[in-house]
Amino acid sequence: MGLDELSKRYLPAIEEELHRIVDPAFAPETWELHRMMAYHLGWEGKNAGREAQGKRIRPLLVLLCAGAVPPPIPAPAEEMAWKKALPAAASVELLHNFSLIHDDIQDNSPLRRGRPTVWMEWGIPQAINAGDTMFSLAQLAMLDLGQTVDRATALLANRWLNQTCLALTGGQYLDLSYESQPVISLDAYWPMISGKTAALLSTCARLGALIAGAGEELQEKFKDFGYYLGLAFQAQDDLLGIWGASEQLGKSITSDLVSGKKSLPVLYGLEQKGAFARRWLAGPIPSDEVEDVALLLENEGARQYTLDIVNRYTHKSLTDLDQALPSPNENGKALVELAAMLLNRQS
Amino acid sequence: MGLDELSKRYLPAIEEELHRIVDPAFAPETWELHRMMAYHLGWEGKNAGREAQGKRIRPLLVLLCAGAVPPPIPAPAEEMAWKKALPAAASVELLHNFSLIHDDIQDNSPLRRGRPTVWMEWGIPQAINAGDTMFSLAQLAMLDLGQTVDRATALLANRWLNQTCLALTGGQYLDLSYESQPVISLDAYWPMISGKTAALLSTCARLGALIAGAGEELQEKFKDFGYYLGLAFQAQDDLLGIWGASEQLGKSITSDLVSGKKSLPVLYGLEQKGAFARRWLAGPIPSDEVEDVALLLENEGARQYTLDIVNRYTHKSLTDLDQALPSPNENGKALVELAAMLLNRQS
Repeated sequence: MGLDELSKRYLPAIEEELHRIVDPAFAPETWELHRMMAYHLGWEGKNAGREAQGKRIRPLLVLLCAGAVPPPIPAPAEEMAWKKALPAAASVELLHNFSLIHDDIQDNSPLRRGRPTVWMEWGIPQAINAGDTMFSLAQLAMLDLGQTVDRATALLANRWLNQTCLALTGGQYLDLSYESQPVISLDAYWPMISGKTAALLSTCARLGALIAGAGEELQEKFKDFGYYLGLAFQAQDDLLGIWGASEQLGKSITSDLVSGKKSLPVLYGLEQKGAFARRWLAGPIPSDEVEDVALLLENEGARQYTLDIVNRYTHKSLTDLDQALPSPNENGKALVELAAMLLNRQS
Repeated sequence: MGLDELSKRYLPAIEEELHRIVDPAFAPETWELHRMMAYHLGWEGKNAGREAQGKRIRPLLVLLCAGAVPPPIPAPAEEMAWKKALPAAASVELLHNFSLIHDDIQDNSPLRRGRPTVWMEWGIPQAINAGDTMFSLAQLAMLDLGQTVDRATALLANRWLNQTCLALTGGQYLDLSYESQPVISLDAYWPMISGKTAALLSTCARLGALIAGAGEELQEKFKDFGYYLGLAFQAQDDLLGIWGASEQLGKSITSDLVSGKKSLPVLYGLEQKGAFARRWLAGPIPSDEVEDVALLLENEGARQYTLDIVNRYTHKSLTDLDQALPSPNENGKALVELAAMLLNRQS
């Protein structure tokens, strides 16, 4: 089975697990809160469906990693590691989506995956509360590991979840604080995306390994694999934000150049102190100037620089995976496919 | 030792435990996030100190309940139940304060405990993120129970924490949704404050009992004690919001009548469909009309009705406590003192 076939097994199981956590958590008088959850998760409302659900990359990563670790003792089918990892998979997806609900408020984004954001539909106060609700559901999901693995492992997984939350909010703090600074250095980029993107992907891989019974050394390899995958993923995202087929992103803003996002190519361009930097500092870039400014940035080497970063961290990530799994099973091979898919995507 | 002496033992220990959780969680580049935590917790910034910290009622309740349960086996001093309960005490205080940070944004409140709110100081996006950060810290604190009690108990306590979060966000959803409705029924009040106030106080009492090794039946009694204490506490709060020495509350709005809050006396008044209801429905009440409208409401019986509710639930709460602790030790007696203090407060 390749990634496609494994996804066909895992994705419906992830969706079922999400429903198992989310649906019974609401009383009739607060059912509207359930609607907010179901809307944001792509289950309900206008244009609900696969597109609106996102790719479920993070829970998929948890399950593939759990399935990739050689079992310490041969286990019967009903005890397969990926099944034990389902609460963790649901948890990381809920955590990711909670952070998106709050991000959309913080960034004033009207659209997410091509649909109005929760705050656009229900207002800011209710959207803050909806995010908090999903945060609690992420916690309850992870605590359910107490039913599938031993308690020490369940407690450790919950600790990792919350240390990852701290990394996320730390990264978000930096991102928000950079907005008010006209120039930040290239060095300032890494702690931000390390917290905002790499920490959670790293935790996904590490959780899969932990739950499958991997020893600490192997867990660390998975952690590094996820971490560098996350850095590469974010750099690729930044590349697509300027040179991608951006209308496919389902975001409201066509180019990171228009929104003024301090992404990796932009920070590289600013450090060159050339024509791009002068134009950037002169004020907002309107849509009709985007093509010219993107070309300016490309000519100063920012596109190649970012591509090199993507390739370097992809290589690092796959090397870690290779060391973790010298003779990969089909889950291990699917992880390589997943990494390739993420890093060659056009949207 | 009475409540005063016990508070002198417990309050510094709570503060120390909060520092133990909060301080090491931040890297140098995100130290500003620590400043937001320390500011909101009353440790730093202008007018920091006891007043700015709030009363720490919830952690005190956890420790007193833990100390009130007769130990299953006589324990040496270093294993006193209240010490084991410290992570839970810190956790509930962090949870409470996270919810306040977000509440203040949702309610557009400029002041909290007499000081500018976090969103007034750092802006809404950073304040949402600061609340999320404190939420994670509350989780990490509770997970530390894994070091002071057995793992099954630690996992259960964490589950209760998050079920309580769901109750809180459910209550907050109702509160926010009531704002846009001109009239709501008296019946709609109880599910709201049950979630917003009583759920957490109930969990505090129950956690104390759990950690001290109480059996399920005794835990339930503590849970009920905290729950009815919470209902009485909120009804008393509503009473003070209209007839209290409101400038002592440290809130920006002098009267719930001006802010239009649908508190218990107001909902009672609306159901009378008399002069108060007509005035309320005619539009916002300016400060200079507050005294007249409060008198109108009092004459229609709302003050007495609310007082009766406070007394009824106080009685229920203390009866539950009495059944839980037929021969109370000094912690048990201090719980009665605490209840009396909360319900006779003037601010």
